Amino acid sequence: MTTSTPYVHGYSPTEARRLGDQADTLAALLHAGTAYPPGSRVLEAGCGVGAQTVHLLDSGPGIALTAADISADSLARARARVAEHAPGARVDWHHGDLHRLPFPDGAFDHVFVCFVLEHLADPVAALAALRRVLRPGGTITVIEGDHGSAFFHPRSEAADTVVGHLVRLQAAGGGDGLIGRRLYPLLVEAGFRDVAVGPRTVYADGARPELVEGFTRRTFVAMVESVRAEAVGAGLATAEAFDRGVADLRRAAEPGGTFHYTFFKAVAVNP
Amino acid sequence: MTTSTPYVHGYSPTEARRLGDQADTLAALLHAGTAYPPGSRVLEAGCGVGAQTVHLLDSGPGIALTAADISADSLARARARVAEHAPGARVDWHHGDLHRLPFPDGAFDHVFVCFVLEHLADPVAALAALRRVLRPGGTITVIEGDHGSAFFHPRSEAADTVVGHLVRLQAAGGGDGLIGRRLYPLLVEAGFRDVAVGPRTVYADGARPELVEGFTRRTFVAMVESVRAEAVGAGLATAEAFDRGVADLRRAAEPGGTFHYTFFKAVAVNP
Repeated sequence: MTTSTPYVHGYSPTEARRLGDQADTLAALLHAGTAYPPGSRVLEAGCGVGAQTVHLLDSGPGIALTAADISADSLARARARVAEHAPGARVDWHHGDLHRLPFPDGAFDHVFVCFVLEHLADPVAALAALRRVLRPGGTITVIEGDHGSAFFHPRSEAADTVVGHLVRLQAAGGGDGLIGRRLYPLLVEAGFRDVAVGPRTVYADGARPELVEGFTRRTFVAMVESVRAEAVGAGLATAEAFDRGVADLRRAAEPGGTFHYTFFKAVAVNP
Repeated sequence: MTTSTPYVHGYSPTEARRLGDQADTLAALLHAGTAYPPGSRVLEAGCGVGAQTVHLLDSGPGIALTAADISADSLARARARVAEHAPGARVDWHHGDLHRLPFPDGAFDHVFVCFVLEHLADPVAALAALRRVLRPGGTITVIEGDHGSAFFHPRSEAADTVVGHLVRLQAAGGGDGLIGRRLYPLLVEAGFRDVAVGPRTVYADGARPELVEGFTRRTFVAMVESVRAEAVGAGLATAEAFDRGVADLRRAAEPGGTFHYTFFKAVAVNP
């Protein structure tokens, strides 16, 4: 589901656990408003390890779900996750590239894409390919983050710098960690209409210990930490500088600290 | 209501109009959840030109409102604004410094503070002074922006730089344009309890032309532009570099552009 990149998060056991934690903590925030009616033909393009798949099945019991991913390994994990969380659910699993899906034109009523476009070199081409398999009048839902929305207290230049490394590594791989702000023009350019984008903001402080733990520490800091070897290997930072940045970032999860991050959720219609 | 600073927005006719536009566009977003019951004694500390005052009176008809500001000129404008928008309303106007209000301890049921702390050198001292005039069990509501939350498409380093100038000028004056993220620790430190802070996010794209005009152009870009002479005078930028940054920022308000900004709203209780 991605171009060949030096950094694609989501493809290691630690990363799979991180993405699972993230999905559970954020499910209410990200999935609110998404509940497909029974019988509707839904394609999850880029299901990865199934972190969002189980929530699609929870909020839309009785949907006819097809889940596709380019990684056979991720698909196997997604199947296991669904088998555990939603044993009765029937899902058609498809191993393949979302740019070249073998389904007929208009095969689906709805397409769902979460944390996928950020990894792609040409997100407009991907969206256009997905539009082909969506029936006229059908909807696409796209959810992406934007690392430029991350800010925190206490402020730290060292921490800002390591977040910047994450963005740079993703860009070097042809992706875009700042894609959330672009969902509107990307969907318009791909030919969708009635494009409605809204921010879904996570804000965590001492009054919300479960978000501090589930999001600040186990999602965002963990994601930044996951590129340590690569950032150091690429010469972006010394190990010491990287660790100093991460240590500063962790202070946002300590008493008196705060952390802010915005996801973007878009819904648009195939004309 | 501010320390003596080289840059304090809000004290010119153009600025007064800008703050009026901002308040109307954002009223629903910022005031949602704030509606004081009839008869409650409410202090608006730092009412400025009355941009929020009229909304307090709209959402809380029958409140006993005292509006205070350190600028006699702003107070006069606030009175005129209230006379025009809410001719029947009774407001006690107080000219003075919020650090040294002459009211007895516990004189108010609620205190409301909007876009004020960002200008103060010691916001904890200000909050403690406001806590003194709040009865036990009374609430304080604080609303502030955070310019570090501003990001946009298309991205531009020149635009990021001029936003940075705004933050630097405010810091040089003893204020903090990045204060939104600090509301939680500031209120805790000032002795409040049950501190609940939430983000109030403005996101504007082509599907929301009224927000593009009212917020991106007439609020945010206008605020950045208002420090042009000062930024150039302080040697932070050449006039050309400043104008280039503003021109880039304006592209966020053109077709295909997007703009994101987060305000923070806090409610806390005086023990």
